[in-house]
Amino acid sequence: MNLPTKVDIREVCLRDGLQIETPIPLSAKVAILEAIVATGVREVEATAFVSPSKVPALADAAELAEELHRFPDVEFSALVASPNGAKRAIAAGLRSVEYVVSASDAHSRANVGRTSAEATAQIADIVAIAHDSGTSVEVIVATAWDCPFDGPTDPQRVLDIVSAAVGFGVNRIAIADTIGTTTPRRVTSLVEKVQPLIGDLPLGAHFHNTRGAGLASAYAAVQSGVTRLDASVGGLGGCPFAPGASGNIATEDLVYMLRDSDIAVDVELSAAIDAARIAQDAVGHDLPSALLRAGDRILG
Amino acid sequence: MNLPTKVDIREVCLRDGLQIETPIPLSAKVAILEAIVATGVREVEATAFVSPSKVPALADAAELAEELHRFPDVEFSALVASPNGAKRAIAAGLRSVEYVVSASDAHSRANVGRTSAEATAQIADIVAIAHDSGTSVEVIVATAWDCPFDGPTDPQRVLDIVSAAVGFGVNRIAIADTIGTTTPRRVTSLVEKVQPLIGDLPLGAHFHNTRGAGLASAYAAVQSGVTRLDASVGGLGGCPFAPGASGNIATEDLVYMLRDSDIAVDVELSAAIDAARIAQDAVGHDLPSALLRAGDRILG
Repeated sequence: MNLPTKVDIREVCLRDGLQIETPIPLSAKVAILEAIVATGVREVEATAFVSPSKVPALADAAELAEELHRFPDVEFSALVASPNGAKRAIAAGLRSVEYVVSASDAHSRANVGRTSAEATAQIADIVAIAHDSGTSVEVIVATAWDCPFDGPTDPQRVLDIVSAAVGFGVNRIAIADTIGTTTPRRVTSLVEKVQPLIGDLPLGAHFHNTRGAGLASAYAAVQSGVTRLDASVGGLGGCPFAPGASGNIATEDLVYMLRDSDIAVDVELSAAIDAARIAQDAVGHDLPSALLRAGDRILG
Repeated sequence: MNLPTKVDIREVCLRDGLQIETPIPLSAKVAILEAIVATGVREVEATAFVSPSKVPALADAAELAEELHRFPDVEFSALVASPNGAKRAIAAGLRSVEYVVSASDAHSRANVGRTSAEATAQIADIVAIAHDSGTSVEVIVATAWDCPFDGPTDPQRVLDIVSAAVGFGVNRIAIADTIGTTTPRRVTSLVEKVQPLIGDLPLGAHFHNTRGAGLASAYAAVQSGVTRLDASVGGLGGCPFAPGASGNIATEDLVYMLRDSDIAVDVELSAAIDAARIAQDAVGHDLPSALLRAGDRILG
């Protein structure tokens, strides 16, 4: 079997997890922040610098950013959707930004009011602004497998964005199953096409468990060479196109599977379950995590 | 990628799904039966001929068996735990029985009051009784990866049972993750050890989604040569060792993943979601299926 010895998990509970939730107080986010830092995770997507009217749950981005300095050993990132967002993130002290480019035009227009090609061209501006302050840039290709409007995404559209991003000098690439529809075979197929284009850049992947195959897709990604995976404690993070469905793959479920595969991760399992419980209390409804219900395996 | 063109799904909702539920009326079971037959599935585990006091939810096995004759195109099976159970199943008209042997002694004793070796020896009696009436026998090796009492199962214990079962002339072999703790790497490892021992006999696998990796394990099994998978509509079927946790892998979630992998199955997806809804109504509580919430993918 072709498995890496280590996978880096990025905790996305505070951004993708909370994004479509009813806004919660800053103090509740700080409690989640402290709990996820306690898991040992080294990378945390903390918030997004986007329109507060479009994403009210993350309107306190600058305030939350002030809390991050207490944890100098963690790499915090923020999602941005424009050069202006990147400037705001950097002004707030972030030194890592993620810029999302949808591979499908309909999703790109719905999300940021621009075509996929227009959003791709803007990578150059984001990189110039970010690198000027020593900030790293990750391009995340959204709707990398399917678009809720345009249907299945032609893989060539993903590859074109990846090639452009590499040309513009981004620091990392990730591919995202935005609506939780992909499955292992298609994951393997796309990862194998992306890998040759990115040289030594680390490749990340972002999966939702909306249709139950999130961990299966994550495992296929890792088998194919992905070394960075996004996950959210509790599996927090819904999909606007599937109300009530599961969200991001749950950090604790992913850690369980990877640990059982002899793949090292920085996240400690029981601390991740504790953090999931705190996140569940903060949002006030049940989260879909399996480990939150079943606990670690009972043996002996 | 090494994927088969076809996988046979056995629907286990009526047995493993209902086993630890509060007993439901025969009429509710018949409604589920009609719904799962309508999915197109060719194999259905209908009930178990075991102690009614130990498994009250399946105490109506003989009555339910009378309903099965209406569906001559479906292969119905029943689980048995002893030669006497096999006789009862055959008398009720079943022509396919599953005999479970736990690979761990503690689980075997707790389940059937015998050691694993004693239960293995009884395969000979079951086969003699069954083959006398033209009934096929499948041996399912339970606790094939982990035991809730004895801890991780030494794979050699599984292989010894498999070899014995093949020697006794059983018709099929399956390996079961009884408590929902295994993950893809260990699935691949065990399947690769079992395959050389069984010649042309079909190898099945039975997974629970208790810790979220059920579909990931199923995919790994299929990649390694397993061509038969158990699943339950709705993901019905809890684990007595993890109250409230997810049960069997959900038929509809499995069908979604396999269909997306270009692997043919007899089960039609929307009919499986309909059957899951009927099963959910029958037991009166939410089921953990992903597709039951998210539906098929929304594209275009």
